[in-house]
Amino acid sequence: MSSNDRVIIFDTTLRDGEQSPGASMTGEEKLRIARALERLKVDVIEAGFAIASPGDFAGVKLVADNIKDSTVCSLARAVDADIERAAEALAYANSGRIHTFIATSPIHMQYKLRMQPEQVIEQAVRAVKKARSLCADVEFSCEDAGRSEIDFLCRIIEAAIDAGARTINIPDTVGYAIPHQYADTIRQLLERIPNADKAVFSVHCHNDLGLAVANSLAAVVAGARQVECTINGLGERAGNAALEEIVMAIKTRQDLLGVHTRIETEHILAASRLVSGITGFPVQPNKAIVGANAFAHESGIHQDGVLKHRETYEIMSAQSVGWHANKMVMGKHSGRAAFRSRLEELGIVLEGEELNAAFARFKELADKKHEIFDEDLQALVSDTLAEEAPEHYKLVSLEVASKTGTTPEARLVLSIDGAQRDAAAQGSGPVDATFKAIEAIAASDATLQLYSVNAITQGTDSQGEVTVRLEKGGRIVNGNGADTDIVVASAKAYLNALNLMQVGAKAHPQVEGV
Amino acid sequence: MSSNDRVIIFDTTLRDGEQSPGASMTGEEKLRIARALERLKVDVIEAGFAIASPGDFAGVKLVADNIKDSTVCSLARAVDADIERAAEALAYANSGRIHTFIATSPIHMQYKLRMQPEQVIEQAVRAVKKARSLCADVEFSCEDAGRSEIDFLCRIIEAAIDAGARTINIPDTVGYAIPHQYADTIRQLLERIPNADKAVFSVHCHNDLGLAVANSLAAVVAGARQVECTINGLGERAGNAALEEIVMAIKTRQDLLGVHTRIETEHILAASRLVSGITGFPVQPNKAIVGANAFAHESGIHQDGVLKHRETYEIMSAQSVGWHANKMVMGKHSGRAAFRSRLEELGIVLEGEELNAAFARFKELADKKHEIFDEDLQALVSDTLAEEAPEHYKLVSLEVASKTGTTPEARLVLSIDGAQRDAAAQGSGPVDATFKAIEAIAASDATLQLYSVNAITQGTDSQGEVTVRLEKGGRIVNGNGADTDIVVASAKAYLNALNLMQVGAKAHPQVEGV
Repeated sequence: MSSNDRVIIFDTTLRDGEQSPGASMTGEEKLRIARALERLKVDVIEAGFAIASPGDFAGVKLVADNIKDSTVCSLARAVDADIERAAEALAYANSGRIHTFIATSPIHMQYKLRMQPEQVIEQAVRAVKKARSLCADVEFSCEDAGRSEIDFLCRIIEAAIDAGARTINIPDTVGYAIPHQYADTIRQLLERIPNADKAVFSVHCHNDLGLAVANSLAAVVAGARQVECTINGLGERAGNAALEEIVMAIKTRQDLLGVHTRIETEHILAASRLVSGITGFPVQPNKAIVGANAFAHESGIHQDGVLKHRETYEIMSAQSVGWHANKMVMGKHSGRAAFRSRLEELGIVLEGEELNAAFARFKELADKKHEIFDEDLQALVSDTLAEEAPEHYKLVSLEVASKTGTTPEARLVLSIDGAQRDAAAQGSGPVDATFKAIEAIAASDATLQLYSVNAITQGTDSQGEVTVRLEKGGRIVNGNGADTDIVVASAKAYLNALNLMQVGAKAHPQVEGV
Repeated sequence: MSSNDRVIIFDTTLRDGEQSPGASMTGEEKLRIARALERLKVDVIEAGFAIASPGDFAGVKLVADNIKDSTVCSLARAVDADIERAAEALAYANSGRIHTFIATSPIHMQYKLRMQPEQVIEQAVRAVKKARSLCADVEFSCEDAGRSEIDFLCRIIEAAIDAGARTINIPDTVGYAIPHQYADTIRQLLERIPNADKAVFSVHCHNDLGLAVANSLAAVVAGARQVECTINGLGERAGNAALEEIVMAIKTRQDLLGVHTRIETEHILAASRLVSGITGFPVQPNKAIVGANAFAHESGIHQDGVLKHRETYEIMSAQSVGWHANKMVMGKHSGRAAFRSRLEELGIVLEGEELNAAFARFKELADKKHEIFDEDLQALVSDTLAEEAPEHYKLVSLEVASKTGTTPEARLVLSIDGAQRDAAAQGSGPVDATFKAIEAIAASDATLQLYSVNAITQGTDSQGEVTVRLEKGGRIVNGNGADTDIVVASAKAYLNALNLMQVGAKAHPQVEGV
C-alpha cells in the first residue's frame, strides 16, 4: 500500500486521557505508559499540556527525553507563552510536535473567547507561525469544529496551512457528531480548501453519544489520515475514541476501508492493562477488544460453531491483540534474571535500587502466593514505584479484628516522616475502622469518593488491588495499593492517596482544551 | 411526528445480555429488570429463550405474566419444538411476540446448519407459519445477516413476510459491519424486496469493533424502524448496542436523524444500575451516558465554559438521563411507609414477608450507617431477595483476625440446611482465610474466577458490594453480598454463589443465537 493509505495513530492517553477526573498520573507513570505506546508503534504521543502545571511540564519533558521511536507532542493554546513552554519541554525530543488550538464554533468564540471571527483567524496564524519558528512539526486544531460553520473552518484552516501547519485537526470536542454528517464535513473541507493537500487532516472524537470510533472511521473513509485516540477510550466525560477499536476495525475491515496503521496489535492488551492499573479506571467486561469477555464465548450454539469453524463467530483472533499470549507463570524459585527479563517483556525497565526493591517484594509475594502471573508483576511494580514517591505517611503495622455482632476495630502504627505514631479506631467494617484509625493521625479532611477492589488474578490467594479516590477542596487523587490481605491493601491505597495529596506531586492541570 | 418516524426499542438484556459469561439471572431478577424496562417504556422486552432450559422457560413466563405495558418476546430456533415452547411461556402475556431465527450466511449454512440455501428458506417459511398459528406478532431473524449474500437475503425475507412475519431483523451477529456498508445493505433490502412495506425492519448489532451503536443508527437513517439493544451494552463478547446510547443519540440529534422513541429517558440511570448490580458487571467510569464520569467536567477551561454557558460543553443534560435526580436520603428515623414508597419510586415493589425482611435489614443498616442513599436501598433489596432463594448454606457467625507479619485466620459457623458446623482456616488475607474456612466445610471444588468490591456510596462507612464468580465444570455463577464489613460481604457473596450452584437454580441455556 502507498503511504497515502496509512493512518497516523496519535495517542492522547497522557493528555486528554489524563484529564479524566481522577486519572492524573505522575511523570514516572506517564513514562511507563509512553514506553508501552512506543512498543505499540504509536506514531505520535501527546504527552501533556506543558504550560498547565509544573507537573505537566515535567511529564512532557520526561517523555520527550526518553522516547525515541514515536513523535512526542505537547498541547498549547494559541498564545506565545503556551507555545514557548511546549517547545522548552520538547527540546530534547528525537522528534517533537507542537499542537496548538483555538475554538472556532460560534458558541465558543462568543462565550469562551469573547472574540470576533477575524480576530480568531489572526491569532491562529500568529500562533502557528510562532510554533513553526520553534519546531518543524506543527499541528493546528479547531476546537469544537463539530459545531463550527464550514465556511469559517475553510478560511481559518487555509490560513493555518499557509502559516506552516502540517497537520490540521478537526475535533468533535463535545461528542455531538453523527458519522455520515461528520464524514461529509471532512469531505467538504478537503474539497474546498485550496491548499488541503499540503497538510494531513486529523480527527479527534469524543464518545458522549457512543460514536467516537464510528465518527473517526467515517472521517478516514472521507480522507482523514490521522486519528487521535486513547487506550481504553480514556478521556473526559465519556472519553475519547478507543485506540484499540480504531486500530482493530481498520485491520479487520481492510477490505472495506482500504487503509492500514503501523500498530503492532499484539501489544494492545498489555497497554490496556497498564493504563487501567495506573489510573484505577476499570475496563468493563463487555468492552470491545480489551474487556475480559471480548473473546469469551458462552452459549452452546456459539461454542459449537467455534469448534466447527473458527470464523463462524470470530472476526479476529484473541492472540492478535495479546490475549493468551505466552503468560509465563513465576514462582518462589524464579531468580532475579528471569524476573528482570519478564518485566522487560512487559515493557517495564527497572534498574539499580528500583529493581532491587521490586525483586524483594516479588520474593515476599512468592512466599504468600503459589503462582505469580504477569498481572501480579505489573501490580507489584506499580506498588513498588508508588512507595518510592516522596512518602510522608508509611504503614508500619496493622492489626484488625472483626466478629459478627461486634464492632470491628483496627490498631495501627504509622511512620510520619520517620516518627512513629499509633492509633486505634472502630468502624462499620475492618476497612472503615482502618481508614478511621489513619485519619485519627492524619486528620486530612479529605472525602472518600470511591473505593474499589479487584482481584489481580484468579484463585482465592490472589492479591487485591485497591483504589481509593480522595477529594479535598476540588482536588482529586487516586491512591493504589496491592496486597494479598485486602485490609492491608486498603490501608496502603489510602496512605498512597494521602501522600499524593500531601506532596502536591502533581496538581491537576488548570487549563486544557480540544 | 408520524408513527413512521418512531423507532421501536426492543431490549434484549434478559436474553442476549444474559448470555454473557457470568451474567445469568434468576427469574426473580429478570422480573425486576423487566419492571425497570417497562418503566422506561421499552416497546418489546425479549425475556429469554424458552426452550433453552427450565429456568429460561420460567423466566420468560414470569415476565410475560407480570408485564402489561411492553410486548414480551421469546426467542425460538426455526423448529416446531422451540416455537411451541415459546408460545407456551407467553400464553398469559398481555402482548406476546415469538422471535424465530435461522442462519443465512454461507459460512453458517455450511458449517453450522449443514443445509442447502433452498432448505433454509423452506424451514424459515415453515417456522414463521407455525409461529403465526400460535401468536399474532412474529419476528424473523436472519442470523449472521452481516455476512450473508444480499440476493439470498432478499429471497428469504420476502418469503418470511409472505408467511406472516411482521418484523424482519437483520443482525450483525459477529460485530463485523461498518456503518456506511451496513446502511447500504438495509437500503437495498428495503428497495428490492417487493413486500418490504408489510414489515418493520429491525437491526441487532454486536460491538466487537466498537461500532454497534453507529451501525444501528446508520440503519435507522436507511429506513430500519426497530433497534435491538441492551442496558449497558451487556451481551456476549463485547456486547450489544447500548440502549442508553441509541436512545440519547436519537433524542440529542433529532435535528439530523428525524426520528424519535417512546423511552422516558430520566429512568435510564436507575435501569443501568439495576442491571449492573444484578449481573455484577461494572460500568466503566468513561462509559457514555451511564458512566460515573459521563457528565463530570474536570478541567479548568471546561469548567469555566460550563459556567459561562451550559451548552458550551454539554450536549444533553445529566438530569435528562436520571443523574442528580431527587436522591432522598433516608436514615434511622425513616419509617416503613417512607421506605416502601421510596422503593416504589425506584421501581421495586415488595409486599408482605419480602417487605418485612427488607425493612428489618434497612433498620439494621441504619444503625451502622449514617445516611442511606438510593444505591444502598437497591443493594439491600438485592441482598434480601438473594437470601430468600433456597439456601443450603447460611452464614451464622464469622470472626477474623489479621495482623501484619502474621498469617490471617478466620473462624466461622455455617448452617447447612439447618445444621450448624464450624471451621477455621488460615489464608493469605482475611478474605482468603474466610473462603478457605467456607471450603473446609463445603468442599465445592469450584474455582474462584473473579472477585470484586465496590463501595455503594461515598464515605468510609459505605457498604461494600462484593461479587464472587465461581466456576465448576464449565458452569459459571455470580454471587453477590453487601455489608458495611467487607469480609462479611465477601462471605455472603461466596455463600450466595455456592447456593446458586447447589440448587442449580438456573442452568445456563445450552442453545441460543442471533
